[in-house]
Amino acid sequence: MERRRVATAGAQAPFRAILILGAASARCRAPSIRSRHFMFFAQSLAERIQETRLEQFSGEAMRWAKAAIRDTVAVGIAGVDAPVAAITRRVTGAETEKGACRLLGTRFRCGPVAAARANGAAAHALDFDDIHETMMGHPSVAILPAALALAEARGSTGSETLLAYLVGMETVGKLGRVLGFSHFAQGWHATETIGIFGAAAAASRLLALTTDRTATALAIAVSFAAGVRANFGTMAKPLHAGLAASNGVLAALLARDGFTASHQAFEHPQGFFALYRRDPEPARVQALDRWADPPEIIDPGIAIKLYPCGAHTHPFIEMIRRLAAEHRLSPGIVDRIDIRAEQSRDAHTNRPRPKSGLDAKFSVHYTVARALLNGCVLLSHFDDASVEETAVRAVMAKIHPAPHPDMDASWADKYGGEMTVTTTDGRQFHDRIVHQLARGPENPVTDGELWTKFQDCTRAVLPQDRIEALFAEVGRLEALDSVAGIAALTVPAA
Amino acid sequence: MERRRVATAGAQAPFRAILILGAASARCRAPSIRSRHFMFFAQSLAERIQETRLEQFSGEAMRWAKAAIRDTVAVGIAGVDAPVAAITRRVTGAETEKGACRLLGTRFRCGPVAAARANGAAAHALDFDDIHETMMGHPSVAILPAALALAEARGSTGSETLLAYLVGMETVGKLGRVLGFSHFAQGWHATETIGIFGAAAAASRLLALTTDRTATALAIAVSFAAGVRANFGTMAKPLHAGLAASNGVLAALLARDGFTASHQAFEHPQGFFALYRRDPEPARVQALDRWADPPEIIDPGIAIKLYPCGAHTHPFIEMIRRLAAEHRLSPGIVDRIDIRAEQSRDAHTNRPRPKSGLDAKFSVHYTVARALLNGCVLLSHFDDASVEETAVRAVMAKIHPAPHPDMDASWADKYGGEMTVTTTDGRQFHDRIVHQLARGPENPVTDGELWTKFQDCTRAVLPQDRIEALFAEVGRLEALDSVAGIAALTVPAA
Repeated sequence: MERRRVATAGAQAPFRAILILGAASARCRAPSIRSRHFMFFAQSLAERIQETRLEQFSGEAMRWAKAAIRDTVAVGIAGVDAPVAAITRRVTGAETEKGACRLLGTRFRCGPVAAARANGAAAHALDFDDIHETMMGHPSVAILPAALALAEARGSTGSETLLAYLVGMETVGKLGRVLGFSHFAQGWHATETIGIFGAAAAASRLLALTTDRTATALAIAVSFAAGVRANFGTMAKPLHAGLAASNGVLAALLARDGFTASHQAFEHPQGFFALYRRDPEPARVQALDRWADPPEIIDPGIAIKLYPCGAHTHPFIEMIRRLAAEHRLSPGIVDRIDIRAEQSRDAHTNRPRPKSGLDAKFSVHYTVARALLNGCVLLSHFDDASVEETAVRAVMAKIHPAPHPDMDASWADKYGGEMTVTTTDGRQFHDRIVHQLARGPENPVTDGELWTKFQDCTRAVLPQDRIEALFAEVGRLEALDSVAGIAALTVPAA
Repeated sequence: MERRRVATAGAQAPFRAILILGAASARCRAPSIRSRHFMFFAQSLAERIQETRLEQFSGEAMRWAKAAIRDTVAVGIAGVDAPVAAITRRVTGAETEKGACRLLGTRFRCGPVAAARANGAAAHALDFDDIHETMMGHPSVAILPAALALAEARGSTGSETLLAYLVGMETVGKLGRVLGFSHFAQGWHATETIGIFGAAAAASRLLALTTDRTATALAIAVSFAAGVRANFGTMAKPLHAGLAASNGVLAALLARDGFTASHQAFEHPQGFFALYRRDPEPARVQALDRWADPPEIIDPGIAIKLYPCGAHTHPFIEMIRRLAAEHRLSPGIVDRIDIRAEQSRDAHTNRPRPKSGLDAKFSVHYTVARALLNGCVLLSHFDDASVEETAVRAVMAKIHPAPHPDMDASWADKYGGEMTVTTTDGRQFHDRIVHQLARGPENPVTDGELWTKFQDCTRAVLPQDRIEALFAEVGRLEALDSVAGIAALTVPAA
C-alpha cells in the first residue's frame, strides 16, 4: 500500500505535526490514562486496550466498523479457493484439526490459531480488502479473523466482538502513528508487523486478560513480528495477514496461560522501536494519548476497495461512473473516451486487447468499458470468457488512453488522471482525480455499493438467501448473543 | 550469546577479512557452484543445500555432529517440564493434535510443525544447549527439532537425518558470516532469525525439494524471521528456538505444496539483508563459496556447555577442575581459593550464601565448591535442598572472590579470570582463563563428560537402561534405518 493511496491522505497533517514536535521532549515515556507514573509502552497500550468501552464509539464509528466487517467477511469468502488459502489450510492442518472456529466459506472447523491464519490469508488473497492510512496497511484482515476465531471459541457476544475489533483498529492506527511512515518505507509489511498488535489487542480483549497479561501478549507479539515487502507479488503477502491474525491470537493465549515476555519489549534498545523503525527521532508514543479520540475507524478512517482490479484503473472507473450517472451516459451515445495518465501508469494500463481475465484486471480499456456497460466492475467480469464478450469489446474500442502531457514522474505513485467523454452528438464531459484509490470517509461507500460487492464476492459459494441473511446479521452485530450464527451462515450448501 | 563467548573466538579473523575485502566489488552477486551465471542468494543457498553429500564431511565432523545431537536430545529432555515447554505444548495444541512426531521426553505425538516448536522450546528452556560463533547463537535447538520431526514424519534414515542436520549447520554458520556481527549486536536473536534458515534447509533436504522450491522455502522463511533480544530473560527466548524450528519446517512444507515467495527476498531493497542487517557494506555473500570447506561444525565448530549455571561461573569451574585433576586436590587439603574477575562480573557472582537453587546458579562460591567436591556440576545440584548441604557449605567458606585489580571494564564481556588455590600445607597453584565459556574444538568435551551431562539431563525422565540405549543409538545414527527408535527411547516409562 502506498502512503497516499487513501483519498483522505494529508488530512492528518496538523495532528501529525503536533505529535512530532512533542516527541523530542517526552521520548519514550508514555503517560498512563490514570496518572503520570511511569509505564512502559506495552503497559500503556494494554491499559487502553482493556479500558475501552463500546460507548466511546459514535454511531458513525459503529456503522463503519460493521461496513468493514461485512467487507472483510465478503472478501474472505471470495478468496477461499485462491491457491494461497487452499495451501495454507492444508499445510497448517486447519482442515484436519478439531475445534470450534469456522474457516469462513468452507465446511471446516478448527482451533482459533489455525482459523485466524487461514481466514486472514483468504481475506487478503485477492488484495481486495480494506486499507488504513496511519496503519500503513490492511487492518481488517489482521484484526477480524483473530476476533472472530476467539469469539467463536469463547462464545462471545456480538457487541464484545465489535468492541474487540474496534480496539484492534485503534491499536493498529495508533501504533502506525507511533512508528511513522519510515516503518513501511524501509520494507516492513505493516499489515503483519503492525497488524499483529491489533490482532493481539482484539484477542486479549476477548480473553478478558488482565492489563499485565495484555502487556505480556503485546511483548510476545514483538517476538513474532515479521513480514517483508520483498515478498509482495507472491503468496507470502496474503499469508502475512494470516500470520498477523494467528500470531496475535497465539500471543494472547500464551499470555493467558502465564507465559512471560518483557514489558520493555518496545522501547528496549534491542526491542521493537529500535529494530522496526529507523527514524532518528524517538518513537511518537504520545499518539496513544488520543486513544479513540477521534477513533481510528473515523479518522483517518478505513477505505474500502470497490473494484477487483489493478489499483491504477480505479480512478478511471470512478470517473466514468460519475460522468455516466451525472450525464446519463450509456454505451450507445458515447463516441469516445480519452484517458490521460502519468506515462508509466499509462504504459501499465494501456492494454486494448487483454488476453485473459488476469490481463484484463490491468486494462483501463476493459475496466472502464465494464463500468460504463454494467455500472460496476465485478469479480465475475474477470473470467476469461467475459473478457471476450462482443458487447464489452465494442465499448473498449471507444477508449483511447495516452500519457498525460503535464503529469511528470512525480505522479507515478498517485492514483489519478483525467478523462474526457465525447458523445455521438458532440458534447464533451471532463473529469479529473488527483489521487484516489479506495473509498474512505470523504467519499464513502454506499450501502448499495457494498451490497453489490458483498453479493459479487459471495455468490460463488453461497445461495442468495444465505448471502442476504449474512449481510443482515453483520448489520446488527452489536445485538447478537453470539457470532456463531454469522460464521455458520458462511458454510457452503452441501 | 556474546560474540566472543566461544573459546575459538578470533580464529576466523583472517578468513573474515578476506570476505570483507571481497564484498565491495561483488556486492550481492552470488556465484553458483556450477557456473558464473547470475543467481539470487536464495537460489545459491538452495543449490548448496540440495547438492551437499554426506561424504563431504570428515569422520571428525560426523563425531561432532553426533555429540551435538546427543547434547541437544539431552537438554531437550531436561527442559521438558520447564514452564515455557509445558505452556507451549498446551497452547499450541501439540498435546491434542494427531501425528507421527514425538515430543521428546513425553508421551505425546503430533505433527511436524507443532513437534518442532515444542521440542525446540524445551531444548532451549535451560539455556544449556550448544553455541556456534559465526551463527551468533544456538544452532542445534533450531535445526535438530526440525530435522527430527520431519525425519519421523517421513520415515527418513539416520544418515539422511544426519546430513540434513549438517546442512542446517552449514546454512546457519554461513548465513551468520554473510550478515556479520551487527545483526546480533543491533538486537536480533540470531538463534531464531538465522536459525530458521538452518531449520528450513534441513527440512527442505529431508523433503527432497527441488532447488527451486528450496529457494522458495528460504524466501518464505524470510517472511517468518523474528525474535528480539529485548525478550531475553523471559520465556520468549526459548520459544524463539522453537519458532525457528517450526517455522523452518512450515516454510519447507508450504514450498513443497506450491506456495510462492520471491527468490530476491534476501537482496531486495525491502528484503532480509536491508532489514536485518545495518552494516554500510554489502552482505558478504561470498561466504557461501566456502560451503562445507571447512564445515561449520568443525570451523569454528560448535561449543557445548557442560555446566547448568551462570555463564560467568564457567571459567572458574574449568579452572578448579583442571587444578584439582593436575594436583590431585580434594576439599580436605584445600585451605582457600582466591578468585579474581572483572569488577562487574565479580559483583554478579560474589554470592557467598545463595538462598535458593536459582540463586546458586550465579554463585561462584557454590559452583566452584561443587566442582571441587563432586568433580562436576549437575542439574541436580540446583534444587534448593542441595544448596543447603553442610559439606558444600564447608567448601564454600574457603572461596574468596574479589575484583581483579588489572581487569578493566573491557573484560566485562569476556568469560575469564584468575584463580589461586592454597593448600593446607602451604602450596599455591595458579590458573588463568582469558576467555572461555563452552567447550569447543580447542578444548573438546570428552565422551565421558558428555555422558555425565547426558545422564544428568535425562535421569529425571528416563530409567538408566533407556538412557544408555539412547546415548548409544545416537552414537550410531548414520547406520540407523529410521530415527523413530531414537524418538521412542525418549518416552518416559508408564
